Order: sequence, then structure tokens, then C-alpha cells
Amino acid sequence: MKTIAGGVTAAKGFQAAACEAGIKYQGRMDMAMICSTVPCAVAGTFTSNQFKAAPVLWDQTILHQYGQAQAVVVNAGIANAATGVPGLDLCRQTAEAAAAALHISSSLVLLGSTGVIGPALPLDRMTAGINRMAAQLSDTTEAGTLASRAIMTTDTVNKETAVAFELPAADGRGTVTVRLGGMSKGSGMIHPNMCTMLGYLTTDCAISRPLLQKALSAVVPDTFNMISVDGDTSTNDTLLLLANGQAGNRCIQEEDGSYALFRDALFQVCRTLAVIMAGDGEGATHLIEMRVIHADTKENARQLARSVVSSSLVKAMIYGKDANCGRILCALGYAGPAFDPFSIELYMVSPDQNLCFYRDGRVQNFDEEKALALLSEHAVRFLCDLKMGDEEATAWGCDLTYDYVKINGDYRS
Amino acid sequence: MKTIAGGVTAAKGFQAAACEAGIKYQGRMDMAMICSTVPCAVAGTFTSNQFKAAPVLWDQTILHQYGQAQAVVVNAGIANAATGVPGLDLCRQTAEAAAAALHISSSLVLLGSTGVIGPALPLDRMTAGINRMAAQLSDTTEAGTLASRAIMTTDTVNKETAVAFELPAADGRGTVTVRLGGMSKGSGMIHPNMCTMLGYLTTDCAISRPLLQKALSAVVPDTFNMISVDGDTSTNDTLLLLANGQAGNRCIQEEDGSYALFRDALFQVCRTLAVIMAGDGEGATHLIEMRVIHADTKENARQLARSVVSSSLVKAMIYGKDANCGRILCALGYAGPAFDPFSIELYMVSPDQNLCFYRDGRVQNFDEEKALALLSEHAVRFLCDLKMGDEEATAWGCDLTYDYVKINGDYRS
Repeated sequence: MKTIAGGVTAAKGFQAAACEAGIKYQGRMDMAMICSTVPCAVAGTFTSNQFKAAPVLWDQTILHQYGQAQAVVVNAGIANAATGVPGLDLCRQTAEAAAAALHISSSLVLLGSTGVIGPALPLDRMTAGINRMAAQLSDTTEAGTLASRAIMTTDTVNKETAVAFELPAADGRGTVTVRLGGMSKGSGMIHPNMCTMLGYLTTDCAISRPLLQKALSAVVPDTFNMISVDGDTSTNDTLLLLANGQAGNRCIQEEDGSYALFRDALFQVCRTLAVIMAGDGEGATHLIEMRVIHADTKENARQLARSVVSSSLVKAMIYGKDANCGRILCALGYAGPAFDPFSIELYMVSPDQNLCFYRDGRVQNFDEEKALALLSEHAVRFLCDLKMGDEEATAWGCDLTYDYVKINGDYRS
Repeated sequence: MKTIAGGVTAAKGFQAAACEAGIKYQGRMDMAMICSTVPCAVAGTFTSNQFKAAPVLWDQTILHQYGQAQAVVVNAGIANAATGVPGLDLCRQTAEAAAAALHISSSLVLLGSTGVIGPALPLDRMTAGINRMAAQLSDTTEAGTLASRAIMTTDTVNKETAVAFELPAADGRGTVTVRLGGMSKGSGMIHPNMCTMLGYLTTDCAISRPLLQKALSAVVPDTFNMISVDGDTSTNDTLLLLANGQAGNRCIQEEDGSYALFRDALFQVCRTLAVIMAGDGEGATHLIEMRVIHADTKENARQLARSVVSSSLVKAMIYGKDANCGRILCALGYAGPAFDPFSIELYMVSPDQNLCFYRDGRVQNFDEEKALALLSEHAVRFLCDLKMGDEEATAWGCDLTYDYVKINGDYRS
């Protein structure tokens, strides 16, 4: 498997476009479209928030009723959440507008929205944007990049990645190259126990829909669900994976070696996007990585790791480059899973020798200068050895800064 | 029942003192002592964090083994947490020093510490402080106030309150006045699912120890456990209630009217201290109150209310005086308890007419100017009507500000 350039247009048969629809932002692109040349099998995971935004409800209906789709239309600026029946009507009208422009059925159109909760989306501008994008669809890397930029809100960088790997050819003669790429956005209102913000993955792999969903559900718990920016699980979180089968591989129908390869590629793409998202949290200046090893169960390892990257006190301490390791211990201590405080060990990860913060039930004396040097890196990494079993998990977050407060003190204006 | 002046010395037979022990802070008092003229029945609740600080372990042992105490010694600046066996030894030595100075048994001495996790407490300075305080014990209101100031860390105001109420006299002739007062500290690392930061309550009420604990356990879930500053459950949270029986009331031995009166007084004292603590959260400029009514169960009402006051996005929005009610809906939606998003209503509480934010499944148009005026008050109050049952709960928190980040970016120095 190797990383390749591009995002949603990396896989064969996928096109993308973006435009300035003027939905809320001015002077920047705020709408994106992805379209496959043929209908795709679709898998998805969605927010667990009870206030599911209208496009989330729309996409869930499409997935459950049809299980396939051909196009995705996404806007930034307004979330179409807490908008009642009119919000649902608007989804239908938007899908119909896209269907007309693309000459497909509206039941093949998925939708995504991100932005302020409450206001209504302007159908006229949405429709105008859709018509312009339908005429500009392109399979170039650039088109995918533009799409990844158009869905940004408070993100400071666009997020896309892609990989290529080999699978047995459908005709039995050797292998073919399969591609899997994606884009995502997310900066605030990001927290585990959901899928994530908006994420759109495309692949030309031929794979059955049940296995597509199985692979997606398998990788999400250790990728998108292991990041946190602020502990707030959004109303709009959506992760979609479209597979159009254009690579020419022998269709994956069972959990064989090809499935394992596909799942590994999916894991890599999801983890890359998740880590970029965590590091680009609202106002963030640092990426925080917390790895918990030798846990008794996988879920306990996840809970402990997430508790640390979600802690406001840990996040503020990283911003201040303060090696106040008691805060990490504290966050482990209230996470829930039981462990022995007298036997665990806590380290700050260093390229040469890890710095021991805690051992034998006590905070250790450590080299403050070295700690400061490690805290001055963009990525700050911690390791906790629970000495209980063989499970491990890693969570990613970001620091809490003045800018987070600034951004969220006046988000609507 | 009426509110009276004072705190821990309001009840008969309780004395207090404070001193500059120079443990970590310079030029301010950092140690406090409370002492009763006679041994007291004691009730307590403690942190659920697995890294329990040494003084928490000490106090739990005293409570479980003896159930009574006569003195409390508290220091600010160093938490004596994650200090291993030496930290436990230091507790014993501190209690022995206090016992010697007060001529009581060391098993009657309770301890409390708050501050940085990791460093060792200096026994010599602790002992010197104890000796000075033992010589200065006083039952004046001022002595109680000094004690409440000495235990502050990043608190900006000291926290004390007291009430008086009438109970039947022990000799059967009319009633006697019973007093209950307390002090607490807490500004950061404050979150429900624990008791709270440090809280010390004293009463001259005669009451059996089981009922004392029962009353305390009954009021904590709706008072101290309903506040959150930053979602971090401390390693040191301790709430102690000492009853010395000096009021001369007929000892409360069963859950009768006297018990109900006592529990009501305890509720008022605990709620007052809890709300002051929430409003004095680190860096806070606003108190946030979230009341959830007509819930199906009490616990669901609590969870929903706490989710809102714990949300970073809600907290930042209050700081920015931004009436972005979607964030409150979002926090309700991921809280856990099920409800119908199409039937609930959300209001901003106003002295005249409440402002409707959300009804009929949609965000409502509301008077932005009026919302801004309400958001400019110190206390900002919201009300959610779930329309499910008869239970309700209220949670209190504070806004997220630049100063919170500043305070916690460099807490150790």
C-alpha cells in the first residue's frame, strides 16, 4: 500500500467540483459536489446526537432504503439542523435539484451540511450552485482539492489523503491497482462517540455493500472516534464511503485477504484524516497524542486515551508548554476503567529516550529542560503503560488556546 | 430557616484559625484549621478519581474506622496527590502534629490538601503552621472567614455561608436554635460525579452518624454534583460535615420532621456554596444555570442539565454573549437521555417574559436585543421543558474565557 496524491478524485470514475454559492460566507467557495460515473455501494456512520440535522436524516434514509448513491452535495456555513419539517423539505428539494442537473434519480443523491445550527438554507442559491458545479465536474486532483477546501468552516487547512494498493483482477490475470481517497472537515464540535464531522471517502474498489459497511464500522472506532477537539458531539457528523467498482478487481465478497487489504487501506486513510483534524482543532497550536498500552480490554484503552486528550486542563497545559503531568494522571483517574495507580507508568514520548513522568505510585523527577523541548514540538506524545493485558489504543486531540475561546465566543457573526 | 453571618464557626463549639505556612504561596495565608470543643460525628463524600490524593485516603480511613473527628487541617498550594507511600506517611505525621498541638488523638484529625499534583508537602512548615494555628483558634465569624480565605487557590472570592433553624430541645421545653455553616474552595478541576472540591461543613446539631451521612449523601447529587467548571474530576475532592451536638436539640435519631428540617438546611448551605463555586470558576465572567423540567426521571434531568453547563461551546458562547442556541440543543442532544427533539422547548429565562429559543422542532426567531441584554447579566439562565414527566434538575457552570486558558497554561509556576 502506498500513499498517493489527491483525495476524493483519486479513485477511478470519481469527479468533483466546488463553487461560491454565497450561502453564508462571502468571497470563498462554500459548496462541493462529488459524483461517480456509475452508482456506488455506500456505507456510512452518523452522529449519535439526538438532534440529527436534516441532511443526516436524509442520508440515513438513502442508506437504509437503497444502499447506493452516485453523488454527494455538501455546503458549509449553515448546518440545516434544528430546522424542523422545512429543513427536511429543503433536503428533498436540494437532492431533486442535483438529480436534475446530473440526470440521475434524487434517491442517488447524498447531502451534507456544516455550520450554524438554526437558520434555513437558501434553496435558490443552493440550486444555482449545484447547476454550476454539475457543469464543472472534473476527475483531476485539483478538483478534489477544491472540494476539500469548499467544505471548510473554521478549519485552517484542507484535509485530504489517498492510498493505492493491489488486488486480484476480476479477469484472474494478475492484479489491478485499487485507489481509496477522501476528504474531511472538522475543527470545532468534535468529540468521540460518533463518527466525526463531515468525511467523504471514495474508492474504485469492487466490494459488496455489507463488507463495505463492515470495513467502515471496523476502522471508525480507532480513527475518527479517537479524536476530540472540545467534547461536543455535533448534530451533523457524517462519514460516507462510496465504492464504484471501477478498478476492475475481483469483487470482494467475503472476509478474505483482499478484504483485509482493503480494510487496512481504509484504516490508513481514516487515521490520516482524523489526525489532521485533531491537529487542526479550533485555535490549536499542538497535536496531542495519547497512547495507552497493556490494557485489559480495547474499550478500556480507548476510554483512558480519550479522557486525556479531552481534558481541558491537559489541553491548557499543553498550550502553556507546562509539564504538569498530574493533570494527565487526573484525567486517567476519572476516565472510568479501573487500574492500579501504584503500578502504572506514564511517559512523555521522545525520539531518543522516553521521559518518565510517573512510576511506583509517584510523580518522578524528570529533566524539565527536555520536557520543555518536547512540549515545543507541534506533536506532543504521551504513553501510559497499564501493565494489565495486551490491548492498546491511541487518541488524538489538540491544545486549548485563547483562539479557541475567541473563535467560539462569537461564532455566528 | 434563615441565613446568618459566618461559615465554619457559625455553629456553637467550633473554632477556626489560618496562617501563612509558606508551603508554596508567599505573602498569603495557605493553611486553615477547624476544631470542635468536643468530638463530632462525621459524614463525608470523596472524589471518584482513581488517583485519590493521600489526604483523601486518610480521611476515608478515619470515617470508615471511627466515624468521628474533632479537627480538620487543610493546606493550599500542594495537593499531596500521586505522592506514593511517602505522601501517606506525611498525612500520618501531619495528623500527629495536629493531635499533639490540640491534645487530642491523631485519629480525630481530618486532613485536606489542594494544589499541584506531584510535589511533596514540607512537613516542617506544616507542623510550624499547625502549632501557630492551634494557639490562635477562635470561634469568631472572622476566624471562620480567614480559614475560608486560606484554602483558596485560583479562587477569586472566599466561599462561606451559614443558616440557623429551630429544632425541639433535648429537655423537651420548646425549641433551640441549631446552626449549620460551611466553607468551600474550588475553581478549576471541578466536575460532577464526585463530591466536589474541598468543602467543610460544621453544625452544632445533635444527630446520629448514619442520619448525618444519609442527609449529606441525599443533598450532594443536586448541589455539589450539579456544578462543572471544566469537566475535570479532581484527585482531591472532599466534602466533610462535622456535627458536635452542642446546640442542645433532641438528638435526631430517625427520619422525622427534625431530620427533614436538618436536610433542608444542609441542602441550602450546599447549594449556596456550590453556586458560588460555579460562578467563581477559573477565569469565569458568568454563572450559567441550566434547569431541565418535566423529565421522565431525576437522573435524566440531571444528565441533560449537566451536559449543557459542561459544554465548551456553550461556555465560550456565553463568554462572547452570543445567543447561539443551537449549541445548547447540541449539548442536550448528546447528553444521553432520550427525548423527542420535536416536542421539547428551550427558553432563556428572563425576569419578565422568557425568551423562546426553540419550539416545534425549530429554532425560533427571537428578540436579539433582549437576548443580548440577558447575556450581559452575571447569571445567565436557561430552561428546557422536556414535556415527559414530573422530574426536574438544575446545573450550574461558568463561561470559558481567555483567563481560564491563561490560568491553566501555566499553573505550576
